[in-house]
Amino acid sequence: MNIKEYMSRIGQEARKASRVMAKANTAVKNQALAAIAAAIRRDAENLLQANEKDLAAARANGLEAALLDRLTLTPSGIATMAEGLEQIAALPDPVGEVTNLKYRPSGIQVGQMRVPLGVIGIIYEARPNVTVDAAGLCIKSGNATILRGGSEAIHCNQALAALVQEGLASAGLPETAVQVVKTTDRAAVGELITMPDYVDVIVPRGGKGLIERLMRDSRVPMIKHLDGICHVYIDDSADREKALAVSFNAKCQRYGTCNTMETLLVSRHVAPEILPALATLYEAEKVELRCDETAMKILAGYPWLNAATEEDWQTEYLAPVLAIRVVDGLDQAIDHINTWSSQHTDAIITENYSHAQRFLREVDSASVMVNASTRFADGFEYGLGAEIGISNDKLHARGPVGLDGLTSQKYVVLGHGEIRK
Amino acid sequence: MNIKEYMSRIGQEARKASRVMAKANTAVKNQALAAIAAAIRRDAENLLQANEKDLAAARANGLEAALLDRLTLTPSGIATMAEGLEQIAALPDPVGEVTNLKYRPSGIQVGQMRVPLGVIGIIYEARPNVTVDAAGLCIKSGNATILRGGSEAIHCNQALAALVQEGLASAGLPETAVQVVKTTDRAAVGELITMPDYVDVIVPRGGKGLIERLMRDSRVPMIKHLDGICHVYIDDSADREKALAVSFNAKCQRYGTCNTMETLLVSRHVAPEILPALATLYEAEKVELRCDETAMKILAGYPWLNAATEEDWQTEYLAPVLAIRVVDGLDQAIDHINTWSSQHTDAIITENYSHAQRFLREVDSASVMVNASTRFADGFEYGLGAEIGISNDKLHARGPVGLDGLTSQKYVVLGHGEIRK
Repeated sequence: MNIKEYMSRIGQEARKASRVMAKANTAVKNQALAAIAAAIRRDAENLLQANEKDLAAARANGLEAALLDRLTLTPSGIATMAEGLEQIAALPDPVGEVTNLKYRPSGIQVGQMRVPLGVIGIIYEARPNVTVDAAGLCIKSGNATILRGGSEAIHCNQALAALVQEGLASAGLPETAVQVVKTTDRAAVGELITMPDYVDVIVPRGGKGLIERLMRDSRVPMIKHLDGICHVYIDDSADREKALAVSFNAKCQRYGTCNTMETLLVSRHVAPEILPALATLYEAEKVELRCDETAMKILAGYPWLNAATEEDWQTEYLAPVLAIRVVDGLDQAIDHINTWSSQHTDAIITENYSHAQRFLREVDSASVMVNASTRFADGFEYGLGAEIGISNDKLHARGPVGLDGLTSQKYVVLGHGEIRK
Repeated sequence: MNIKEYMSRIGQEARKASRVMAKANTAVKNQALAAIAAAIRRDAENLLQANEKDLAAARANGLEAALLDRLTLTPSGIATMAEGLEQIAALPDPVGEVTNLKYRPSGIQVGQMRVPLGVIGIIYEARPNVTVDAAGLCIKSGNATILRGGSEAIHCNQALAALVQEGLASAGLPETAVQVVKTTDRAAVGELITMPDYVDVIVPRGGKGLIERLMRDSRVPMIKHLDGICHVYIDDSADREKALAVSFNAKCQRYGTCNTMETLLVSRHVAPEILPALATLYEAEKVELRCDETAMKILAGYPWLNAATEEDWQTEYLAPVLAIRVVDGLDQAIDHINTWSSQHTDAIITENYSHAQRFLREVDSASVMVNASTRFADGFEYGLGAEIGISNDKLHARGPVGLDGLTSQKYVVLGHGEIRK
């Protein structure tokens, strides 16, 4: 069987399974999630061995340290996976919820029912925990899923797949509701993103390069995340303590996450006072500052100071580097953000009610914040319980995507024999 | 200036205008809609003359009668366009609505704000009324729009565009918020669907062939409608009068609409009694019946009777033709629908509570109905006030798409200086 036939068969099985999953009731889905969690705990030792095989091969192939780190399973990581499934089981079932059911003048009642999307294809890097998280979210939301993880994690992913399928079967659900692609051939990805008959949506997780490539070739809609060029704007009426705390936290709490601040905008009126105070905080963390002309002057003498170019306004550093621009005020800040932001998460620090209102309304990003750290842009912090990813798209779902984002709404009409006049 | 440059300039202007439209307040948008309606009434005579130019050219080119009919503007059609705009003005403004604003344990408040999509490209056939409807819906929902109507309507569309832009300007909004493409060169469509930097979503309105072609080439997400292969299933516990009334209405009230029934499924237990009664109704309208073997036997002697092939289960007749299949019961009916339906609108006629519940949950279509005619699947009947189209997609919007479907939701976070721990 060639790759095309193999993927096509997986697709057909997924489509069939999706019909069963769509009508599975809440208790059965939760039972499957609990069974998978139990199986993962039971087989922790086997999973570590499978992971060791992947790690050995990865080391032999000279995989870089950061990737090895993501690939590594630990006993506590395994426990976290199992707990994650139990948390998903505890979330309310989104499927079947009917909202806005209202009588119309014709006599019919019209409402909307939340329903699964169908078959979700997930393409991700060599991170075994994604296999379990994604499977759990898709099961709970009544979808079938096809998982294509990084080839470096193939042994571990296959071992996890077996446990997921065991759990599904024990609850009487089709094992094919979660299928992990068994081949490491890259052609499998090409097939997965061009089977609109079998796959309803693709969720790619990975670097910008991978996602841009998938966007070019995909014939299936995507819920995708490109990059996080997040801004904090310190308004002229900002509270000094909030400005310092949030600007430091947004940059330094973690460098490698997509909701980390990459550009700081400061109003001209407060820049001379606030920037030196902030620099003291950043200096302790050895943060490099890439500044526009005005900020350069204010911060003269800072040990890691460099002039910013336009390139800096569009760079996601994911590192202890921060671009700084001094702006005339709110208008210029909003303009800068709507021009350069990746529309992920942007925050204003202000005590001015009207400025807060305008920022919330006019900044066109998935998450817009007042007086809070951009680091809060996260499914757990937002109360979604879990997330399959963060969407930079405008259609369907913006920002953190949880169970609701893996569903859609159909119209339901309850009639009593009505006909159209 | 070549087509690529021309479209790119239109795109840039639209992107700029979309920022202004996104923050325009409700009163200003309504003022623009009222001004356009007034201008259309004032210039009715000019519009008829522009339309006459289009009609003369179309007749000279031998355009077929149905298309000529759609192209034709009448005084009452012009009045309806103006009223439509006033109805849109009367609808609630979707933009800025904040829902689910809740405190989280961290102290931040998280909610969702409804926001415009940005720039909407609409590609449609030679129907001048779509120009005005689409412009009105996009203005109210705070979007900028690029309209590409059928080339046969170019004079009329340009005349309407001038009035729309006059109305926008009179309310202080940018004229470029609604741009009608001035060239009839088909290359303009190719550009419009491949400018993701300037266009956020494409709404194609037209035949299945056009839309499939656009799907292949588009680099921009689409809200699209392919076809309407709608079903009515008469369950064994159907009320006889409701079954007759709905099955007749769903087929015969109008033949050419996408929510017209194309296939009737009847439970084996009631087919011998219900089909002959229905045939009497259809006979009066000379409806051709394409039947499976069992229905053929029951309806022997009906004057326009033919055997159905698998082809009939996947055909949108848009004509007085109906496919009929006798099924074993609910399971087979749901299975037939989930296999052959275009996921537009499907109805069950039943008095059985559990059958109704299962049909609503298990049929995977944009509109699922109990005891009501499929002809109700329509934005006005559903209370949306107006519709830009009906979506066969699963992501973003299913079924009739109104103002909400032209918007999205971003997260808003109201903090008090919170940082991530």
